Amino acid sequence: MDMAGNLLVVHGGGPTAVLNASLYGVIRQAQAEKEVDKIYGAIGGSEAILAENFLDIGNMPDEKIELLLNTPGTAIGSSRFPLEQEQYEAMVSVLKKHDIRYVLFNGGNGTMDTCGKVSRVCEKEGIFVVGIPKTMDNDISIIDHAPGFPSAAKYIATVTKEVGADVKSLPIHVCIIEAMGRNAGWITAASALARKNPGDAPHLIYLPERNFCEEEFLEDVKKLYDELGGVVVVVSEGLRNEKGESIVPPIFQTDRAIYYGDVGAYLAELVIKKLGIKARSEKPGLCGRASMLLQSKVDREEAILAGREAVKAAVSGKTGVMVGIRRKEGEEYAVEMPLIPVEEVMLHERVIPEEYINERGNDITESFVQWCKPLIDGDLPEMVSFKDDAKQKLKSRI
Amino acid sequence: MDMAGNLLVVHGGGPTAVLNASLYGVIRQAQAEKEVDKIYGAIGGSEAILAENFLDIGNMPDEKIELLLNTPGTAIGSSRFPLEQEQYEAMVSVLKKHDIRYVLFNGGNGTMDTCGKVSRVCEKEGIFVVGIPKTMDNDISIIDHAPGFPSAAKYIATVTKEVGADVKSLPIHVCIIEAMGRNAGWITAASALARKNPGDAPHLIYLPERNFCEEEFLEDVKKLYDELGGVVVVVSEGLRNEKGESIVPPIFQTDRAIYYGDVGAYLAELVIKKLGIKARSEKPGLCGRASMLLQSKVDREEAILAGREAVKAAVSGKTGVMVGIRRKEGEEYAVEMPLIPVEEVMLHERVIPEEYINERGNDITESFVQWCKPLIDGDLPEMVSFKDDAKQKLKSRI
Repeated sequence: MDMAGNLLVVHGGGPTAVLNASLYGVIRQAQAEKEVDKIYGAIGGSEAILAENFLDIGNMPDEKIELLLNTPGTAIGSSRFPLEQEQYEAMVSVLKKHDIRYVLFNGGNGTMDTCGKVSRVCEKEGIFVVGIPKTMDNDISIIDHAPGFPSAAKYIATVTKEVGADVKSLPIHVCIIEAMGRNAGWITAASALARKNPGDAPHLIYLPERNFCEEEFLEDVKKLYDELGGVVVVVSEGLRNEKGESIVPPIFQTDRAIYYGDVGAYLAELVIKKLGIKARSEKPGLCGRASMLLQSKVDREEAILAGREAVKAAVSGKTGVMVGIRRKEGEEYAVEMPLIPVEEVMLHERVIPEEYINERGNDITESFVQWCKPLIDGDLPEMVSFKDDAKQKLKSRI
Repeated sequence: MDMAGNLLVVHGGGPTAVLNASLYGVIRQAQAEKEVDKIYGAIGGSEAILAENFLDIGNMPDEKIELLLNTPGTAIGSSRFPLEQEQYEAMVSVLKKHDIRYVLFNGGNGTMDTCGKVSRVCEKEGIFVVGIPKTMDNDISIIDHAPGFPSAAKYIATVTKEVGADVKSLPIHVCIIEAMGRNAGWITAASALARKNPGDAPHLIYLPERNFCEEEFLEDVKKLYDELGGVVVVVSEGLRNEKGESIVPPIFQTDRAIYYGDVGAYLAELVIKKLGIKARSEKPGLCGRASMLLQSKVDREEAILAGREAVKAAVSGKTGVMVGIRRKEGEEYAVEMPLIPVEEVMLHERVIPEEYINERGNDITESFVQWCKPLIDGDLPEMVSFKDDAKQKLKSRI
């Protein structure tokens, strides 16, 4: 069977710090495969297939392709809209018209749903459809973690450590850092990796996996404030109360959606109002998935490799599968990338398991730290505090 | 005259990314000066003088001192409270008791006020008091710029460029980035250094130096949104209306202060409400003065040097002066550090001059970019967008 043809790569959903690294892996591997003729990028997500908005990205100058490794977002553009069944069917003729034999979908749960549906309509057409995982939120099921999450984890851990040093410098206040991940608290939890010594930030961590109780929160903050002076709290942007509603009252409503304020700002205000303690909030938001200097090296390598593996799978005739990431047994961190039937991952959201959350629901457990640490390239850079030294000296005198 | 004695270094106000670099410079220079015996850090700002809370930081292990270069905040702690006249007078006996001959104050306008007052009470005591400038906001007058600002500028420019690439990836929305600097828009303005090509973020910049008009803002956003799809706006946290009031309505009031919400969040909400366009806001806040990877190299070097120069000035008998930063004439960026009478800088806030702001007040001018560029180590890393290439191709076809 003649396997020669063009390859199309499609991005779906929000970007990560390494989505372009996967694109890099796709291009480099496809350039090396004799079966692949042209390498097309779908410009602007899956709608680009119907619009036939393809760009030949395989013959771009080498310098441009190398820049992918240091560019956040997605160089080919993405989209968020789910498609209708007839649109999937219409895709087949477009793909055939452009002699596209290989289609790679790089995205999260929603994109894997699309990937599965496209693979089904392409089943008898000799078109091979493979998924590449991507989500900063880490909510794709079955795999150990998804490319994009390790960098988001390294970002929040680093920022929490840095802000912790800042807050420690000035007398007493409460600082709330809002982390991304509306339904899954993986990024919020990763802030714990900022800690090295007792008393280090973050001092409290609140995940969307647990119902948030304002009274307990205020109790926790007050206690730590009295003890430490400066308190750093990391919260998920998606905190909900016991009724499952956002803890922030809705600000206003349009036809399509209800808008809430920021959780971090809301909680800082609560601390000022109810405890009379000076508080502020930081919301790095998109900065946390766009920072190139805080890309995790592990993440970048895995993202490139996942792109390469997807090309290999497609040209070897695999379809309806996603490149997985499985952690190997053993002391040393290492992964393998098995192919997983895309139906198994489609639209199933993975949240943090109970064993990673402490009993009170205001922190994570050591087992989470052990799981997460290799993903952020191990220990964060060391810092120094003479203020802590002075405190220690004072204590030892007493 | 015997000039031997101890040296005390005091930090005032909020930290910057290079406040510890100046501390490093102070320690290294003081270790080299034969006049200086012990090097004390005031643990927790000027109140530490009265509390006699000093730590011998000159004989710390070398590795610890080196870590100062990579630690945000201040390793010795800082404070914000202004002192009373009698407290200044009380300081003299404390300084004498500890055989302190040299006092260095490292801070912004408020700290230079303290520095001046302490130098006056010490005038006839043979105690030499020298200031080291520091402010991320860049609002110290007379000098070209203050240590701390270049790193804050590099941070906001980098983050704006990265978020710009992220926003460009997904179809159409408005992203408001809130920058620090309540009264002076230097940091907000520095976001302009993210631009390389036409259409690059930031697309709009609003400074506190100009009255903010919501109608004009909405007009500007709508126009750019129709043209570009994704719009990135950078705003100062301190935007005020024509009455000089915060554009955000007060949320609530305590005995001591009125609390306002976040300007960025407020404007994002306004865009959704009034224009019906999806919008969000990012507020990196303290992250922008704590990032070690986005420290400007120029800033770090100047901060170290300013610390060193202050020690040299003090041991050579100068007092009541601050180490200045003056840009040398010529193509190549270079500075000199003249000593400036501290009275000349005390409590005078420097804002952005008119020539750096465009007529409509929604952007800065090219002359600001030229002034600022050497401070952030020149050009930011390059990025790639195939989406832009596709757009160009489409345009050239039409």
